[in-house]
Amino acid sequence: MIKVVAKGKLKPDVKAEEYIRISRELVAETRKEEGCISYALFEELNDPSIFTMLEEWENEEALEKHNQTEHMKRIIPELSKLRESMEVNIYREVE
Amino acid sequence: MIKVVAKGKLKPDVKAEEYIRISRELVAETRKEEGCISYALFEELNDPSIFTMLEEWENEEALEKHNQTEHMKRIIPELSKLRESMEVNIYREVE
Repeated sequence: MIKVVAKGKLKPDVKAEEYIRISRELVAETRKEEGCISYALFEELNDPSIFTMLEEWENEEALEKHNQTEHMKRIIPELSKLRESMEVNIYREVE
Repeated sequence: MIKVVAKGKLKPDVKAEEYIRISRELVAETRKEEGCISYALFEELNDPSIFTMLEEWENEEALEKHNQTEHMKRIIPELSKLRESMEVNIYREVE
């Protein structure tokens, strides 16, 4: 199993509600994918401009397929417009 | 429930094995704590200098107690010496 932490910082003039609204469709579509164990949007308790997707995937192949889906290709550019920066890390547990 | 992402970057001359060895005691002790749902060390697939603790806590009170434990106060300074930087985010799922 692998985990993804995709941490986004919103532009100063962007409303969180708008970012959340668009993310909801991405979450709903992604949860239907094969190999997706969990996928959810989180808010940072101490910084209201930070929204992070915390994801669990069965393996790297499932994640690669996810990145090629129609919903990712359509929705990611919409979310990117609202973000100042984005940082994605892919993790495997240390045995 | 809250989630914590504590992302550390090792100094260039530090061996990952040393960082992992010290972290193992912290993981073992923390998992015994009340309110700790999960706590584990992860390695970044694309950057061998990044090690991140991914944590789940029942609530903020449990996390605050965790930060005051003997094992945190003793082991965190040891790990800090091996790190170039550390970034901690605390998250709540967007409803």
